[in-house]
Amino acid sequence: MQDSSWKPDKTSSIPLSVQIKQYIKSKIENGEWPVGTKIPPQRAMAAVFEVNRSTVVAAVDELIADGILEGRSGSGTRVVNNSWTLLTPSAVPDWTSYVQSGVHRPNRTMIREINRAEFVPGMIRLGTGELSPALHPHEMTRKVLERLPDRMTSLGYEEPKGLLPLRERISAYLSTSGIHASPSSILIVSGALQALQLISLGLAQPGSTLLLEKPSYLFSLHMFQSAGVRLCGLPMDERGIMADRIPELAKRAKGAMLYTIPSFHNPTGTLMPEDRRKELLEVCETAQLPVIEDDVYRELWLDEPPPPPLKAMDKNGLVLHLGSLSKTWSPGLRIGWVVGPEAVIDRLADLKMQTDYGSSSLSQWAAAELLSGGLYPRHLETVRTEMRRRRDRTLELLDSGFKDIASWKVPSGGFYIWLKLTRSLSMKELFEKGLQAGILLNPGSLYDPLSAPYLRLSYSYASLEDLEKGLLKLSALIRRLAR
Amino acid sequence: MQDSSWKPDKTSSIPLSVQIKQYIKSKIENGEWPVGTKIPPQRAMAAVFEVNRSTVVAAVDELIADGILEGRSGSGTRVVNNSWTLLTPSAVPDWTSYVQSGVHRPNRTMIREINRAEFVPGMIRLGTGELSPALHPHEMTRKVLERLPDRMTSLGYEEPKGLLPLRERISAYLSTSGIHASPSSILIVSGALQALQLISLGLAQPGSTLLLEKPSYLFSLHMFQSAGVRLCGLPMDERGIMADRIPELAKRAKGAMLYTIPSFHNPTGTLMPEDRRKELLEVCETAQLPVIEDDVYRELWLDEPPPPPLKAMDKNGLVLHLGSLSKTWSPGLRIGWVVGPEAVIDRLADLKMQTDYGSSSLSQWAAAELLSGGLYPRHLETVRTEMRRRRDRTLELLDSGFKDIASWKVPSGGFYIWLKLTRSLSMKELFEKGLQAGILLNPGSLYDPLSAPYLRLSYSYASLEDLEKGLLKLSALIRRLAR
Repeated sequence: MQDSSWKPDKTSSIPLSVQIKQYIKSKIENGEWPVGTKIPPQRAMAAVFEVNRSTVVAAVDELIADGILEGRSGSGTRVVNNSWTLLTPSAVPDWTSYVQSGVHRPNRTMIREINRAEFVPGMIRLGTGELSPALHPHEMTRKVLERLPDRMTSLGYEEPKGLLPLRERISAYLSTSGIHASPSSILIVSGALQALQLISLGLAQPGSTLLLEKPSYLFSLHMFQSAGVRLCGLPMDERGIMADRIPELAKRAKGAMLYTIPSFHNPTGTLMPEDRRKELLEVCETAQLPVIEDDVYRELWLDEPPPPPLKAMDKNGLVLHLGSLSKTWSPGLRIGWVVGPEAVIDRLADLKMQTDYGSSSLSQWAAAELLSGGLYPRHLETVRTEMRRRRDRTLELLDSGFKDIASWKVPSGGFYIWLKLTRSLSMKELFEKGLQAGILLNPGSLYDPLSAPYLRLSYSYASLEDLEKGLLKLSALIRRLAR
Repeated sequence: MQDSSWKPDKTSSIPLSVQIKQYIKSKIENGEWPVGTKIPPQRAMAAVFEVNRSTVVAAVDELIADGILEGRSGSGTRVVNNSWTLLTPSAVPDWTSYVQSGVHRPNRTMIREINRAEFVPGMIRLGTGELSPALHPHEMTRKVLERLPDRMTSLGYEEPKGLLPLRERISAYLSTSGIHASPSSILIVSGALQALQLISLGLAQPGSTLLLEKPSYLFSLHMFQSAGVRLCGLPMDERGIMADRIPELAKRAKGAMLYTIPSFHNPTGTLMPEDRRKELLEVCETAQLPVIEDDVYRELWLDEPPPPPLKAMDKNGLVLHLGSLSKTWSPGLRIGWVVGPEAVIDRLADLKMQTDYGSSSLSQWAAAELLSGGLYPRHLETVRTEMRRRRDRTLELLDSGFKDIASWKVPSGGFYIWLKLTRSLSMKELFEKGLQAGILLNPGSLYDPLSAPYLRLSYSYASLEDLEKGLLKLSALIRRLAR
């Protein structure tokens, strides 16, 4: 429903409720709402159709009288018959049982609510971890697109590991942060998320353990759990994940791996300093524990460049390194990469071929064009300047409106401020009342189910004006809900 | 190795074997070939580096003498040490065990060989199911790309089901073949292959059965088996899959589904006529058996348009319908779609978000632009004209060179001729000797493990000249190997 573009025609001579009845009938007739489907709540339909609820009620009541729909108090209204079939209702497939039986779990309810609310017009998104559309490099994108037809030698499938000219550019680009990776040890993926999906399907052993920071972005996803992997969160201090418990945990866990975001951690913003990186890598080497280094925020430093990635210090092929253009250029390109030992990259490339036959060639050529010449570094400068303004403004707003209700640390890069609420309140209620007030929040429980009341604030997405409006609303809401 | 771009510099004063030794050392030093890695065969390295095998042997021997490599007869040469680590070799992670332990199976060896051989320069691809790069619409692509910067309102993430303007275009496009689907019942995917992957992860019940044609393209893939689903092939006649055994099989199998390619079936080229389509749909309705209709070849008719898709006759929401631009426009766009009941599409969209956060926006905007206006129908006309020429020429070549060694049927659309060899010979040997002779074949066993000796010939990829050269070679090779 949420993205349905249909609305009744208010200029038509046909009554609105008749139009709505016809619309519902056509959804049923075309098999989009088969027998057994629970139709959307009447309140939601009224909102989408921009009519009074009573108009929807009239249409639904008629369909109930026709024997097409059946309403049961408490369980909503369902399609029970379609007059166009000779079959008895029970002869229609029971899709519900299929929808519930796949091996991969659905997203958490709150994530799905967030995914939906992101497309509600006017919603102020205070937690979205993306560059504001205003910062997308439209002019540079135009330049890149203009050059493409002459550069693209074909638009067919690419090699299993991805377009070679792009892997060559990424190889050169990685050397600037000290990583020496030849093109054959690089796999192009459709964003770092897909790299995690491939690792979960291809390298994770059912019953094994994934060690990671607590909180972590990865707790908001389901791919490793769906592959039968247990997530085991390790405590962090202000220098990142604490390495001391790793040897003991890794020894007990067969086929374990470690997932870490050392630069501008999601959601806490923590930057791991060089000595902690060295310690972590040594501990993992001794424990023979493979490391997944998620480094998608590296280029978003605001004060000074971060220390070298773990991969740059890795002489033993222990580290799988993930990078992406999604956070710095545009998520819509869907271009990221994984770097690692050739045999591992071969396995992941084979899986990628089985999953989607490679990423969009158009996107790969665009990314290759972007990474050649000076376009990308120039764009990064612009982004950093803008992000500094946004971070500083957000900190001002927090200083003036949140000192007595929350605490936070100043991030030196990335998108996030990990806001700890010092008043006791229901985070679920805060989330829902926020939606009603037009602000979309990312509660900390997404990143650590048992966390104290935190919010992941992002200064990257909303405009400065919206950040100000949104934070004012948030401050007022917290005060109202706090007991 | 196969896509490594490094070669020794023959103009340098440094001896070639020293350069190669240094190259191998750097692969080890950078962790691309960690301790335990089996390095590529010396013969393969010599071919890639374009040097004598003795030059590679000299480099490898020195590294063995240095204690870096160890050669064992029969099991190849392995990295046993890197002088740069203080760790004992056993302290390096055992990637092999990870690579072998994921839940998703690797591609079959022959598929991987095919994936690799496709990028060997000069190889004549007699089985590749893609449009020849010469038929990619370069000028139209240029036009589409030129318009994009003005059309794209953003390049961020799109809605979970995909870019709305594209779903609206696809909805309009589908209505031309009798399918009424509103945008909310359409999910954009990165090619039909990804739709199958999402269905296997999201709707297939472990232990359930997927009924399908025998042979079928799907036998060459692993996604359903990796999700614990059993494939059960049903016999075909010249009118497609035989529906009579379905009721009995569906009754015994809980959570079963049917997969079918009714139009220009892959690999046999069979076109299911309208009455068989009706019969099949009725049988599946009675058995409450959901149907996956893979219709990616529909537009590639050569003699007359095919009968309406199953989905156009489906009033009960039984059918998931798959379409794609990969076979008709360019596989590099990676744009396909699934149409089905809204609740099922919602579930698949949620999974898609978890898998890769949506398809490339750039590709989605390009596809939307392509499907508006008359570009696409005009391009399809060109493709059909060219495909007719290719099919007819291929049939001439078969008539003149294969009558006494094979039999086949004339396809009325699609890319394939299902060639049955009437001489007894080893298909594995034919495949391998073919590679050596510069022709890449798709043996029938990929599509039906127990099939008689068949080849999937494709007239879509190789140039007319290469088709002629390749088929001559093939004919000679079959005669040579036949007993």
